[in-house]
Amino acid sequence: MPLNKGFVLASRPQGAATESNFRFFEKEIGAPGPGQVLVRNLWLSLDPYMRGRMDEGKSYAASQAIDEVMVGGAAGEVVASNNEKFKVGDKVVSANGGWQLYSLTDGKMLNKVDDSKVPLQAFVGPLGMPGVTAWVGLNRILTPKAGETVVASAATGAVGTVVGQLAKARGARAVGIAGGPEKCKFAVEELGYDICVDHKAADFAEQFKKATPNGVDCLFENVGGTPFKLASSRMNDFGRIAVCGLIASYEGAERTSLDDMRLVLVRRLKIQGFIVSEFLADWPQALTELIGLASSGKLKWRETIAEGIENAPSAFLGMLKGRNFGKQLVKLT
Amino acid sequence: MPLNKGFVLASRPQGAATESNFRFFEKEIGAPGPGQVLVRNLWLSLDPYMRGRMDEGKSYAASQAIDEVMVGGAAGEVVASNNEKFKVGDKVVSANGGWQLYSLTDGKMLNKVDDSKVPLQAFVGPLGMPGVTAWVGLNRILTPKAGETVVASAATGAVGTVVGQLAKARGARAVGIAGGPEKCKFAVEELGYDICVDHKAADFAEQFKKATPNGVDCLFENVGGTPFKLASSRMNDFGRIAVCGLIASYEGAERTSLDDMRLVLVRRLKIQGFIVSEFLADWPQALTELIGLASSGKLKWRETIAEGIENAPSAFLGMLKGRNFGKQLVKLT
Repeated sequence: MPLNKGFVLASRPQGAATESNFRFFEKEIGAPGPGQVLVRNLWLSLDPYMRGRMDEGKSYAASQAIDEVMVGGAAGEVVASNNEKFKVGDKVVSANGGWQLYSLTDGKMLNKVDDSKVPLQAFVGPLGMPGVTAWVGLNRILTPKAGETVVASAATGAVGTVVGQLAKARGARAVGIAGGPEKCKFAVEELGYDICVDHKAADFAEQFKKATPNGVDCLFENVGGTPFKLASSRMNDFGRIAVCGLIASYEGAERTSLDDMRLVLVRRLKIQGFIVSEFLADWPQALTELIGLASSGKLKWRETIAEGIENAPSAFLGMLKGRNFGKQLVKLT
Repeated sequence: MPLNKGFVLASRPQGAATESNFRFFEKEIGAPGPGQVLVRNLWLSLDPYMRGRMDEGKSYAASQAIDEVMVGGAAGEVVASNNEKFKVGDKVVSANGGWQLYSLTDGKMLNKVDDSKVPLQAFVGPLGMPGVTAWVGLNRILTPKAGETVVASAATGAVGTVVGQLAKARGARAVGIAGGPEKCKFAVEELGYDICVDHKAADFAEQFKKATPNGVDCLFENVGGTPFKLASSRMNDFGRIAVCGLIASYEGAERTSLDDMRLVLVRRLKIQGFIVSEFLADWPQALTELIGLASSGKLKWRETIAEGIENAPSAFLGMLKGRNFGKQLVKLT
């Protein structure tokens, strides 16, 4: 039996997460029992929601248990199977393969994927949970009309990457917010944003106003903090805000507030928080569209790849600080 | 020709509105021209939205012009008509009869009403704009299910009065927030709220928690300020907040904020601001239902009546401070 390696949650963060919150383990993984599938994870997806699950208390997902393997989506291949739905060599993605080299499952959370036209790891990125998140937020909450202005924060992140391209496909004007000139350049030149504003720039507020001369109709919020305050203050009448993530506030340093509720009243705004796992009925349509776009080369994205399971914690902590550029992955082989 | 009396907006408030912001006028009103109708206003409605219109700048309605007659809904009777749709003696309501004894109009904003079963002034209260506001917020935004908890602030106000009764009719648990024990008693005993919490009580927060043991599913927000913060902090997953009014913040003293946007994300809340005049398609259904309930004695409400147009400013300023008990009216005869 192969030797499994990975990380469990050792302790809950006090403020910002640190490497000491994770504990490495090595342990032989058992053979599949009746109905079980043994998957060798090839790619681990690192996503901001994991930070929320490290905390205790009421959140939208059950808190990650101490001493349990860190949750995480993974793409891999079947290496042993007692489940008639899967055979050895099948490429699969799992919503919870976990931060580990192997996972043993009953196959219920496992989906076969066809990586003949797109690389396998795309199925935990633009063709997986982050891509569907962008699709749902855009099509089920924001519903931009042609000519409207859609703003996305973390514009080059796993979700924002797809938001801009889908917004453009709907005929909207896409305005990105990203950290640094390099990311902004990529957002415009590769992802097709009409314009991208660097929130680290000293004149960010002024630049953002110039970038949204007609105000903001739709705000796809991934970050929170100061950029959220600025973008939300420029909402037009009947504007919509999809609250997808607030990564700036996950470590307790900066609370994101909506300072004046009169804005909601006077502009008749609609603000909605959402979790993509609660829009299961939309996944097939979203994935069909996204895979179609990717297969014909019409969907662009970028990856930041950490090598080896040992580097998962540092890559994760870096992502929380915005050090990734595009989808953050860990290559496990 | 009769002598018209009323108030124009003399100046814009700096902070809290005062009587000096209004100027009394007396002026003969002309005879109706071709197609025009002369209405004698019998009841003037005083509503919080008027305060917003006294300010300059972008709001949901055009700013009230200086030296123009104060805007306001009114119920009255036709005293002269050159419009074939109206004859002398018709009882009518107008969305902008104004703070005055007579109004001369082209009839486009005028609606005939039948006051044989309900008193005329109800058509500017529970059977008019405030009642339809309650209906729209409840049926188009909050959509409470049976058993869910609906909280309404200003529970005995013109809107809150109707919110509670409609929520109960949908099988929801109705929790009111009102200022003082007398209003709370009325909310429960007459309006049918399951419970009402006095926001002026020293132990308001504790009482409110006890009154909402299962959290809050729907919040019909009329007031803002501290009660809003408390109620919004107790929202359940998939909770809805209809932002109808924020009277606590209209005079600049207390800004209403949503302190932690993570709440919106973690609980997947939907927050929507709305203005009843933008739901015109819903008015006929809403009014039919409300008039039906009132005609059969199933809809309760209470009025605070100021006597004489001269007292309109003081009654209005008192209402902004919550001194009214139920619908604030001015009796003009």
